[in-house]
Amino acid sequence: MPHQPIMFQKPFKAEGSQGFRQNLSELLANQQSGLTLQQPFYNSPEIYRLEVENLLMNRWHCVGHVSSIPKAGDYFLFEFDSESVIVVRGENGEVHAHANVCRHRGSRICSKQSGHANGGVLVCPYHAWVYKLDGSLRNARMMPPEFDSGSHGLKPVNVEVAEGLIFLNLSDEPREFSVVAEMLSATAGKFGWGDAKVIHEERYSIDANWKLALENQVECYHCGPSHPEFSRVHSQGRPNTEQITEQTRAARGEHGIDISPIDKWAERETRGEEAVFVERHGMFNNALTASDGGQPVAPLMGNASGYDGLFTIMYVGQLNHFLAYSDYGAIFRYTPRSVTQTDFHVTWLVRGDAKEGVDFDKEKVTWLWRITAAADKRIVEENQIGVNSRFYTPGPYADPIEAKTQRFIDWYLSEMSLAAQA
Amino acid sequence: MPHQPIMFQKPFKAEGSQGFRQNLSELLANQQSGLTLQQPFYNSPEIYRLEVENLLMNRWHCVGHVSSIPKAGDYFLFEFDSESVIVVRGENGEVHAHANVCRHRGSRICSKQSGHANGGVLVCPYHAWVYKLDGSLRNARMMPPEFDSGSHGLKPVNVEVAEGLIFLNLSDEPREFSVVAEMLSATAGKFGWGDAKVIHEERYSIDANWKLALENQVECYHCGPSHPEFSRVHSQGRPNTEQITEQTRAARGEHGIDISPIDKWAERETRGEEAVFVERHGMFNNALTASDGGQPVAPLMGNASGYDGLFTIMYVGQLNHFLAYSDYGAIFRYTPRSVTQTDFHVTWLVRGDAKEGVDFDKEKVTWLWRITAAADKRIVEENQIGVNSRFYTPGPYADPIEAKTQRFIDWYLSEMSLAAQA
Amino acid sequence: MPHQPIMFQKPFKAEGSQGFRQNLSELLANQQSGLTLQQPFYNSPEIYRLEVENLLMNRWHCVGHVSSIPKAGDYFLFEFDSESVIVVRGENGEVHAHANVCRHRGSRICSKQSGHANGGVLVCPYHAWVYKLDGSLRNARMMPPEFDSGSHGLKPVNVEVAEGLIFLNLSDEPREFSVVAEMLSATAGKFGWGDAKVIHEERYSIDANWKLALENQVECYHCGPSHPEFSRVHSQGRPNTEQITEQTRAARGEHGIDISPIDKWAERETRGEEAVFVERHGMFNNALTASDGGQPVAPLMGNASGYDGLFTIMYVGQLNHFLAYSDYGAIFRYTPRSVTQTDFHVTWLVRGDAKEGVDFDKEKVTWLWRITAAADKRIVEENQIGVNSRFYTPGPYADPIEAKTQRFIDWYLSEMSLAAQA
Repeated sequence: MPHQPIMFQKPFKAEGSQGFRQNLSELLANQQSGLTLQQPFYNSPEIYRLEVENLLMNRWHCVGHVSSIPKAGDYFLFEFDSESVIVVRGENGEVHAHANVCRHRGSRICSKQSGHANGGVLVCPYHAWVYKLDGSLRNARMMPPEFDSGSHGLKPVNVEVAEGLIFLNLSDEPREFSVVAEMLSATAGKFGWGDAKVIHEERYSIDANWKLALENQVECYHCGPSHPEFSRVHSQGRPNTEQITEQTRAARGEHGIDISPIDKWAERETRGEEAVFVERHGMFNNALTASDGGQPVAPLMGNASGYDGLFTIMYVGQLNHFLAYSDYGAIFRYTPRSVTQTDFHVTWLVRGDAKEGVDFDKEKVTWLWRITAAADKRIVEENQIGVNSRFYTPGPYADPIEAKTQRFIDWYLSEMSLAAQA
Repeated sequence: MPHQPIMFQKPFKAEGSQGFRQNLSELLANQQSGLTLQQPFYNSPEIYRLEVENLLMNRWHCVGHVSSIPKAGDYFLFEFDSESVIVVRGENGEVHAHANVCRHRGSRICSKQSGHANGGVLVCPYHAWVYKLDGSLRNARMMPPEFDSGSHGLKPVNVEVAEGLIFLNLSDEPREFSVVAEMLSATAGKFGWGDAKVIHEERYSIDANWKLALENQVECYHCGPSHPEFSRVHSQGRPNTEQITEQTRAARGEHGIDISPIDKWAERETRGEEAVFVERHGMFNNALTASDGGQPVAPLMGNASGYDGLFTIMYVGQLNHFLAYSDYGAIFRYTPRSVTQTDFHVTWLVRGDAKEGVDFDKEKVTWLWRITAAADKRIVEENQIGVNSRFYTPGPYADPIEAKTQRFIDWYLSEMSLAAQA
Repeated sequence: MPHQPIMFQKPFKAEGSQGFRQNLSELLANQQSGLTLQQPFYNSPEIYRLEVENLLMNRWHCVGHVSSIPKAGDYFLFEFDSESVIVVRGENGEVHAHANVCRHRGSRICSKQSGHANGGVLVCPYHAWVYKLDGSLRNARMMPPEFDSGSHGLKPVNVEVAEGLIFLNLSDEPREFSVVAEMLSATAGKFGWGDAKVIHEERYSIDANWKLALENQVECYHCGPSHPEFSRVHSQGRPNTEQITEQTRAARGEHGIDISPIDKWAERETRGEEAVFVERHGMFNNALTASDGGQPVAPLMGNASGYDGLFTIMYVGQLNHFLAYSDYGAIFRYTPRSVTQTDFHVTWLVRGDAKEGVDFDKEKVTWLWRITAAADKRIVEENQIGVNSRFYTPGPYADPIEAKTQRFIDWYLSEMSLAAQA
């Protein structure tokens, strides 16, 4: 599907945007390297607005997996900031994404988080304008003869699918996607994610700025104190992660899965491309997967011919993280909703032909990450409360255990410097 | 009661009101005729503030019916934006309206939506200042001798009563009311509304801008898809409404009710007068009134000598709509509370001497409009959500089925153009 | 404990602070003496922000009593505006106060309102940085060798204790405390508050501006209409309070408690010192204490050798009021949380060795002030609603019954004039 230009509602700028740019430039100039951000970056609505428009809207967002919408007309919603997008399976199996806004009077068309478009059409419940699954307007009752149906289709949102994962880009100049497709082919592809199926989804609504959520997501300094269940089976957050990985690899060998690290993350990306990052680590305590006790909880996925005791982490851009174990996968999606509200979605995948109750127990597959995600929500909210204080001052990142958080912040600051000058 | 000047608290203007006026002027210049409004008109707090002060405060608002306050001291509250007004029956049967703000320290005096002023006085619960029903200060305990009671009465709000309907005007330069009184005499008067009685009231709190609520109220393009119960008995929203009306009139004749259309609505009003509008249509499916099945649910009202299968719609200004059937009446009141909150009140009237349980069943009289109003709340809220999206762009009104909505928007834009220059 | 300087997060000023200062100056110039404040003083977020920074942060706040934290490691939180402070008993019995913000990534350290620091350390739950009770950083795991623990202690908050009462000052230039200590020694000290114990605390969250709450607190014009239970046993709010006091004193004599009035309140304070105020009145209806019926509800406190039928009111600054009866004490604390949200805390004290169920019944000791405080919450919220109206205009304070309220407002206006020029 070709990328289509999108005409946005031009923002209604309150006066004084000049003053804001100047304040922002001073704030950026005062920011010290190696320390956490100054308070306004975590709670200024004006800064949040700039971030959404300049740093987040033009990125690729992984919104789910094709197995959630198997039949033509099946849809789910993707919500981001004040936006709602309908992701729907088309007549010929393709995936479409449309702004969830009727072209007549602007009503939301779908209000349920997921559902099925009866009769193969999306009907606005307000005045019954009828759209095809590809977004084109099929019928608008009682409109005058001169009305041009052709120019009143649903606004298209750019969509790409790679290894079963659906990605959206809400800008009219999306970044080059090929680097993402290549990375996923070399990672998730080997685990057969293209044919996998979603068995569960959870949404954690976090009362905190999106950057605090991501700073937490990418470091494992907190794993010991905050995630005992996670830490029992993962080597991350320990001083000797690399050594454990080497030992695991030596002891068990690779069972059909050969994955190399990739680092085109953040500032190492090529301008215009989406950032990607891959690393592979050993489990801990001889665990074979991320479960209570470390024993397998679902059939082997993709090319895996045995449990190698390793797990793979993949990043796409800043907001999308993926975890592949031998027997299941997890998709982590962060979506900012306001300056201090962030949705955190977790989606669990298993082999496409695995049968619930026979091949896997859903509770056991999802147990570890449900506990861990709920703890992360609590942690990040406490962080926001503290950061809101006058007494908060930027503190030092621990090196090297928080290196990825610092890398994220460095990327953020360089992007904001560009945005402040734009 | 003579219209009295009101001294308002001067608004505390944040800097930059110049910038706001310029932005507004640009927005108005960009607005295309025949299309819905641009997004900021639906969600900008600054624009809402201007609307309240310049377009809404100086209009007449129908706040209820005299039968709700039969005895001296009976009162109810009218709430609008951040205001609360006490509407109270006086000693001699007249209706008074007072700002619900004590002249001592500013406390709200009445907090219940309706009640009775015991002993014929309104007593502030804070320090027990005592006001007569006409608003004058009767007693302020312990005040020093030099205190001037005469200048500390409750702030008066202009009030008019016509055909039993109570109207308030919150400005100190109210529009000429006579055109409203004449219109109501020629319409509601024939249905005996002056002697009617209120049997039920409902408040629907709508999370949407007041204009979206009114755009919905004045068109019946949505009636088919959204209001099946309404559409079974009303001819509106069909291509042949006029034909149905003619046929009904020919088949049944007029039974004592002779009402002509009036169009002094919106831009056809005389400057300084309130706008009014009247139209009369046939019911559908041989219905005689707006009920489940179309059969009568209450005794004939006023001059009606039989069921003529017609119904009458009346508008006063933008926010007040009235419906008269042969056996009952409905008062629709929209009151903005904030930029995206609107109260929608519905009040049901029947003949004054009708007895509940004998002459009418309240559930049956109110059934259709309870269902329809609840659906309207849902519809309008979905519209607001969609309009908040970046992907929203103004869409085309369907002509002629949405002509009244477009007429409302044209009025709005012309008023805002004046306000932007003021 | 020496007063320590605090480095605050520099506020991120939106443009237009010049315009705000000019608007404020005009508002102050328009304010009439003897009348309540103009509306913006009660609901402008910008004015609230200035008040917090210039009028409230640099005052001493009574946050509780030492008996709430008897053992080393016992702590409770003090919350003010967006701040949270940990008040904790140290190893040697001293009281420490620390900003509840980890020096690493800014997380809140304690989230419960009160508790115990296990093992004699405060551990941030996020990454397990460990602080001693005196706030110094004991251990930060995995930090690099060059990390300076000595400069990463919890930010200290100035703390003073007088007669068992704990006071905090959130500024780095706290006012001289000695006048407070002297006043309390001459009042609360005689009631033995230093050895008293807390038996109950209540928090009333008031949806109103802090000044409306305090205007209410310091006058008894409203006591008759609004607090019948209070008025049955207190002489305040009556025209002959002084006469009652004299009669009570003559009839009963002083039983070991000799307290003189002090007036270093508001503008009578010495610049740089905290304001204090003391007065002593007779109970009413031959009541001996503030209870249902006026009979004693707990053992005599401190030097009291009998029930003298008098009670003592003490003020520290604007936000802290204290009441001493012969058998119990009450601490009243107002803490602004936002422009229209104020926490109102009441803490009840009895003699330190009194046993619940034997020497006193907690329900009886707390009954009167629970009822009275709940009524005050309701009153003040109704006041805010009225003041928000366009129809609100400043009204006259009743002289002399509202003299203390007017005194408070005069102080406020003189402080705001200084702030507007700063």
